[in-house]
Amino acid sequence: MKKLKVIKIGGNIVDNSEKLQKFLIDFAAVEGAKILVHGGGKVATAISRGLGIEAQMIEGRRVTDVETLKIVTMVYAGLINKSIVASLQSIGCNSIGLCGADGGLIVSQKRKPEPIDYGFVGDPIQVNLNTVNALIGNGLIPIVAPITIDLQGQLLNTNADTVAQALATGLSQEYELELIYCFEKRGVLSDIEDENSIIDTITPDLYADLRQQGIVAQGMIPKLDNAFAAIAAGVQSVRITSAEELSYGGTTIVGNGY
Amino acid sequence: MKKLKVIKIGGNIVDNSEKLQKFLIDFAAVEGAKILVHGGGKVATAISRGLGIEAQMIEGRRVTDVETLKIVTMVYAGLINKSIVASLQSIGCNSIGLCGADGGLIVSQKRKPEPIDYGFVGDPIQVNLNTVNALIGNGLIPIVAPITIDLQGQLLNTNADTVAQALATGLSQEYELELIYCFEKRGVLSDIEDENSIIDTITPDLYADLRQQGIVAQGMIPKLDNAFAAIAAGVQSVRITSAEELSYGGTTIVGNGY
Repeated sequence: MKKLKVIKIGGNIVDNSEKLQKFLIDFAAVEGAKILVHGGGKVATAISRGLGIEAQMIEGRRVTDVETLKIVTMVYAGLINKSIVASLQSIGCNSIGLCGADGGLIVSQKRKPEPIDYGFVGDPIQVNLNTVNALIGNGLIPIVAPITIDLQGQLLNTNADTVAQALATGLSQEYELELIYCFEKRGVLSDIEDENSIIDTITPDLYADLRQQGIVAQGMIPKLDNAFAAIAAGVQSVRITSAEELSYGGTTIVGNGY
Repeated sequence: MKKLKVIKIGGNIVDNSEKLQKFLIDFAAVEGAKILVHGGGKVATAISRGLGIEAQMIEGRRVTDVETLKIVTMVYAGLINKSIVASLQSIGCNSIGLCGADGGLIVSQKRKPEPIDYGFVGDPIQVNLNTVNALIGNGLIPIVAPITIDLQGQLLNTNADTVAQALATGLSQEYELELIYCFEKRGVLSDIEDENSIIDTITPDLYADLRQQGIVAQGMIPKLDNAFAAIAAGVQSVRITSAEELSYGGTTIVGNGY
């Protein structure tokens, strides 16, 4: 099987042009087939505020109403996506910016309005392998914004971690897949106070132990749950690292039989 | 040579969701390989105003300063482009939204600041055939927003008519190319007061006659000059028609030897 890396960066990198520029140089240098998924960042909130659109919150979670959907489509799939593509093109990395609607890349299901109506938010159900193959088979490197589409053609705001996971899972049918989550820490730490206490590898068995011992911090649990879900669904390995250490380091999550 | 149609719609269609929807159904029904280029419309102006960004004008022409560039990138390559893609996907047309930066599709030269500094505005100099072939060769229909990129990786605001002309000209090396401009009138009219007085075909010789007789109205002259420039550069035919009559009608512009 051919190898493919799906790499995800969050808003903290997108919002910091110096960090983003450094990351993109590292991303361009990654060998082999690769896809970048980027999060949103704070620009959408700033523009919403500028336009006088109030953020709708229910139980502390943001609701994507029709105006917010327009803003995130503009900012994520327009401004951020094209700025990343332009930067990569300027360093010879032949990238192509997409959202989930393009080429039917990621089809989602609009989240049910019960118990909480999050508005125009989608959860991925399907990835279009033909579209990915057409692009990476021709040396085009997909840069994916976290906006997807449902079967009725409705654009939907979608969590970027989930987009990366869905892409990795869907594409693991045809590729030996490494999913890399870049985040603020250098990896999963055995001591939250010590940036150097990176756990090298976590299997499901070790994860169970770490949770029992309370070693894995609360914020890491959803990330690791997602990672193990990807592993269970066929992704070969998941790496959690910092954006500054894309090509090395971090914590690798693998199946028990690895 | 394989056939390819490059079809351009302007802001008047983009701004009218009912007209746009009808047009997209017709576009989806066009047989064979095709590319859609869309203009900007009034949304960018409305958002700029909402954000308190004053439109910079020099001698009656809009200047693209750095803030305006961000807005047009968001609105043209984000909101409008992805809304068109979503609509087309919902009617089974496997479109993929791009701007000129994606896959290095359209490389421009930033317009020189003398005599007027238009800011971040580009004039296309090169089209990437490989990118187009990778997409249409795999059944993906490119939907192109009028934002391009220069060799330094700078995004540039670009006239949509020019984008369509550049794509058609660049691709005419490999394809039998028809360039279709959709605009408000039903074609080039011999009597500006009579919507039915459509001139069927115009050759360069006839164009010279029509201009001499004052039959071609002033607003049409730049459009026809562009059309003949495309013909001179290798485009097989250019059609000028209304968005409502995409598949038939309008005025066809061809070379003398046609």
